[in-house]
Amino acid sequence: MRITITAFDRSPDGGKGLARDTRVRWALEEVGQPYDVRLVDFAEMKEPAHLAIHPFGQIPTYEEGDLALFETGGIVFHLAERFPGLLPEDAAGRARAITWMFAAVNTVEPVILDLVNVRILEGDKPWAAERMPLVVERIHGRLRQLAARLGEAEWLDGAFSAGDLMMVSVLLRLRPSGLLDQHPGLAAYVARGEARPAYRRAFADQLAVNTRPAD
Amino acid sequence: MRITITAFDRSPDGGKGLARDTRVRWALEEVGQPYDVRLVDFAEMKEPAHLAIHPFGQIPTYEEGDLALFETGGIVFHLAERFPGLLPEDAAGRARAITWMFAAVNTVEPVILDLVNVRILEGDKPWAAERMPLVVERIHGRLRQLAARLGEAEWLDGAFSAGDLMMVSVLLRLRPSGLLDQHPGLAAYVARGEARPAYRRAFADQLAVNTRPAD
Repeated sequence: MRITITAFDRSPDGGKGLARDTRVRWALEEVGQPYDVRLVDFAEMKEPAHLAIHPFGQIPTYEEGDLALFETGGIVFHLAERFPGLLPEDAAGRARAITWMFAAVNTVEPVILDLVNVRILEGDKPWAAERMPLVVERIHGRLRQLAARLGEAEWLDGAFSAGDLMMVSVLLRLRPSGLLDQHPGLAAYVARGEARPAYRRAFADQLAVNTRPAD
Repeated sequence: MRITITAFDRSPDGGKGLARDTRVRWALEEVGQPYDVRLVDFAEMKEPAHLAIHPFGQIPTYEEGDLALFETGGIVFHLAERFPGLLPEDAAGRARAITWMFAAVNTVEPVILDLVNVRILEGDKPWAAERMPLVVERIHGRLRQLAARLGEAEWLDGAFSAGDLMMVSVLLRLRPSGLLDQHPGLAAYVARGEARPAYRRAFADQLAVNTRPAD
């Protein structure tokens, strides 16, 4: 059955690959599944037809026959479970890889996304400048812990897995801030993710959407 | 193999059930597995022995023979996969339940935990009072979307699942703030979760730890 995902008609990042459809595109490329993309704009995302698939009115979504999923973690996990290549075969390695998926979205991403609060949602508030160093320090604290665990390893736990795909995707959101460069081990880890052919194809495809001429 | 989890020696909430070990206790009770608890204090959580299991120096952790996991989503998923009772048997229902697990920790919990930033981590800052309404409104926005999806249903997608366990656990963190009561449908949903015998046993067990006499 043909897979269809949704993505921003025009991503706010202009094609830097930071919109969340990139994670799902990457996973689809890793497992070698073709897919269609339905582009939605910000107004369409809040309409009943889209909310029926994504209750929080965001992208991406995933449709495959009667199955409709939202939430990148859920979609990537579904692909990892259904097709080989993103989860170890042994039960313990698999459980640890899934734990890293959750760690990426629940322990690492929230401190990083606070940058969006301080910069954009609250960018015009009088406290924005003074609050920024606190937000940045919380990010560095989390990154130091992650860097300590990764050490000199290539990936978080053995071979590349859906846990790395999610963690690299989350860390990539730091790229524009320059904060990632202060953690050379993690910067190299992210670069290894970006160098994967599947990531490069996913990135190129979202870039083509976001840099296409106006209709 | 005997399961051992970690929990706070004394939870900062004094036993209100908001510490994250409660989620794991609840899942263990739902699947009927006995477990041991190793209590750790804040100093121990930052020591190498604990960091070897939990790279971010938090609780809970999960140990079972050679397998060590951290991150509540990862632990609850492992239990749900290993023992019957927390995931539907059909592939589509299972994929949707797992999507709700990720939605709980990645889309709902971060806006709720921003209350901790504004109240505690930044409670002494000059902007705390003025920032609070923004944080509260972001929470209400997310809760309205969740309430719209839940509607009059008992659980998020068919029978009670690990997705509900995680979502109820995340929403419970709002209890002290009173914000949950402004969404009667969600308050009733959370109350249904709390009424489950497995939750009541988990709650009682963490309460006993946190209200025991000083050693």
